[in-house]
Amino acid sequence: MIPKSHPRYESLVLRDKIVKAQKEGYLAESAMIAHGRGEAFDYLLGEKTTFPAKRAMYAAVATILLSENPVISVNGNTTALAIDEVIQFAKTVNAKIEINLFYRTDERVEKITELYKKHGYSQILGTKDDDIKYLKSIKNERASASKTGIYSADTVLVPLEDGDRAEILSKTGKKTITIDLNPLSRTSQTSDISIVDNVVRAFPFMTEIAKDLKTQDKQLLINMINDFDNRKNLKEALKLFKNK
Amino acid sequence: MIPKSHPRYESLVLRDKIVKAQKEGYLAESAMIAHGRGEAFDYLLGEKTTFPAKRAMYAAVATILLSENPVISVNGNTTALAIDEVIQFAKTVNAKIEINLFYRTDERVEKITELYKKHGYSQILGTKDDDIKYLKSIKNERASASKTGIYSADTVLVPLEDGDRAEILSKTGKKTITIDLNPLSRTSQTSDISIVDNVVRAFPFMTEIAKDLKTQDKQLLINMINDFDNRKNLKEALKLFKNK
Repeated sequence: MIPKSHPRYESLVLRDKIVKAQKEGYLAESAMIAHGRGEAFDYLLGEKTTFPAKRAMYAAVATILLSENPVISVNGNTTALAIDEVIQFAKTVNAKIEINLFYRTDERVEKITELYKKHGYSQILGTKDDDIKYLKSIKNERASASKTGIYSADTVLVPLEDGDRAEILSKTGKKTITIDLNPLSRTSQTSDISIVDNVVRAFPFMTEIAKDLKTQDKQLLINMINDFDNRKNLKEALKLFKNK
Repeated sequence: MIPKSHPRYESLVLRDKIVKAQKEGYLAESAMIAHGRGEAFDYLLGEKTTFPAKRAMYAAVATILLSENPVISVNGNTTALAIDEVIQFAKTVNAKIEINLFYRTDERVEKITELYKKHGYSQILGTKDDDIKYLKSIKNERASASKTGIYSADTVLVPLEDGDRAEILSKTGKKTITIDLNPLSRTSQTSDISIVDNVVRAFPFMTEIAKDLKTQDKQLLINMINDFDNRKNLKEALKLFKNK
């Protein structure tokens, strides 16, 4: 148990979740390194949700609410850190959830599927190999997608995605939304809407935004999306690292 | 094999070393997370050795050369990333090497000891439990030290050290030198000389500095140490993150 008085308490609780997930065997071998990078960026951000992150979240939620078939892509790290928060958000915005792993193995897919079931969500996509199609006909693990999920989605939310995959997705014409603490990463740079925040804070915040925006006029949502400039917003996000 | 053309080649080679070390069983369970944090900070530094890092290295090498009993503390990550570079530096400045692990287990100590032997260094300290004494009489794993090594050292070089341990060391009156990519960490903030750089670049650079300083007049080394202001230097290091 980490004492609540420890100067790095919140961060250590998340670190423990990742270490636990590693032991349970559903993380890729370099997943902990990715988490460490996230820790460092969050640290430099002050571990707070910034204004540019909030603005991106409003545009993201509006986009998802106006989509026909929005899909949230989850991997081991997102699951370890925020499984309940992801399910809650998916239910609120009526989005599907699809497993997409950087190093896909049947064992890891099964373990993650079981976890979602245990947490009350049993419709997860991307679990069966015969359901897999390839985006842009690229026969590459990084281009795989579930037929009724990401393959046919108009909007995909891909938290904690790697750069290769994000680049492929950005070329499909789908609206891509990411949550990534590094504003300079290829994932942030190639997405349509890049939320520079910790998934643990972002999902609950987006759920609250969704509850609000669902009661608003559709035109307000459209304006929100049109007014959003991802490049400009990323620059603002980056400045917050600089001014620490 | 990572293709040399990959935009993140150098960084991925180091990441592979850490993943390999994890599989070989001599890293602590959250060591990969620590590496990821290092990756992120190095990324924001531009993965280059900065001027403040070089200045700190000159002061560090001068201090070590003027010490009676300088000791380099190594853990799993330092070993995985830079074992040959550490041995080379230790030999050049005539310093001892001591194993100090955050989560000490006999198995990990043995594996690391074997590695140093394989790489041509068999005098490593801190391997036997009966050789362990406690700094400042703190009966805590984080305060343990080898009797002839860190316990009686006048100067300790502790690359990649955790904050709790660094704080204990800083209270012993020994000169403490650290290599840490985060200028804001407790380790950087509590050390006498903080080198904000990647250990992989810092050790070979310090070896070159040592070869030079060994031929210089002792007074020059003393002046170098007296002119060095760690607090000011850390501020300069931090600015280089800001200006990226």
